[in-house]
Amino acid sequence: MQVIFYDNVTNMKKADKPVPGHDCMRSLCPVSSVLDIIGDKWTLLVVRDLLFLGKRMYNELADSMEKIPTNILADRLKKLEAADIIEKNPYQDKPVRYAYTLTKRGEALRPVLIEMASWGNSYIAGTAKPPKGFMDK
Amino acid sequence: MQVIFYDNVTNMKKADKPVPGHDCMRSLCPVSSVLDIIGDKWTLLVVRDLLFLGKRMYNELADSMEKIPTNILADRLKKLEAADIIEKNPYQDKPVRYAYTLTKRGEALRPVLIEMASWGNSYIAGTAKPPKGFMDK
Repeated sequence: MQVIFYDNVTNMKKADKPVPGHDCMRSLCPVSSVLDIIGDKWTLLVVRDLLFLGKRMYNELADSMEKIPTNILADRLKKLEAADIIEKNPYQDKPVRYAYTLTKRGEALRPVLIEMASWGNSYIAGTAKPPKGFMDK
Repeated sequence: MQVIFYDNVTNMKKADKPVPGHDCMRSLCPVSSVLDIIGDKWTLLVVRDLLFLGKRMYNELADSMEKIPTNILADRLKKLEAADIIEKNPYQDKPVRYAYTLTKRGEALRPVLIEMASWGNSYIAGTAKPPKGFMDK
């Protein structure tokens, strides 16, 4: 069974990158490839805010309960857009302001977040239970 | 709906940490709390190797297709053990060597990895399909 997971593409060049925003694919393992994109403490919190908390504007996203630093927020929005997980559209001119929404690829991350929330509720004491409906796949 | 997710525990002190290994709980959100522990590019790959690839020994874990640096592997094993996701048991003396296994908490991460693999297979071109049986929850 290891063979399939072990196709090594560590030396894949940037030009070969299979999806936008995926600069370095460490292996063909789908788990590893997902972590290449969303493997950090902040990226999925931006996705959570768009998916579950109804946020759209930069200022709303910057006002997270985890106090995301604005430089990290700006970086993650750029990376999520490059990976085609979110898209931004201007909603006003002068100064131009953008609204952020999840793409179909981004919406499809819902089960990942639901399973994380479920694990957190089961195994990390004190975590809040999401409101009804949030955990429906 | 934001109220429940927005209980702010950013100032929670270390002494209040609700689970071993959880040094800083950014909020009560279960997604955020999980990311506090496993939110990086490598931790879930160690879990993957134990969960799906039958690895047990340090040398087996060090021999990952993603070429995990040994200092990162040692650090993540320590953190996973502190978070009660893995446990280590000596399997030989002189020199002492340890075998690593997932705890019940660790095994319970299976659905998270399965949903990640599913997303990767659907949305990242070129990722390998896991062998049959791997994706059963």
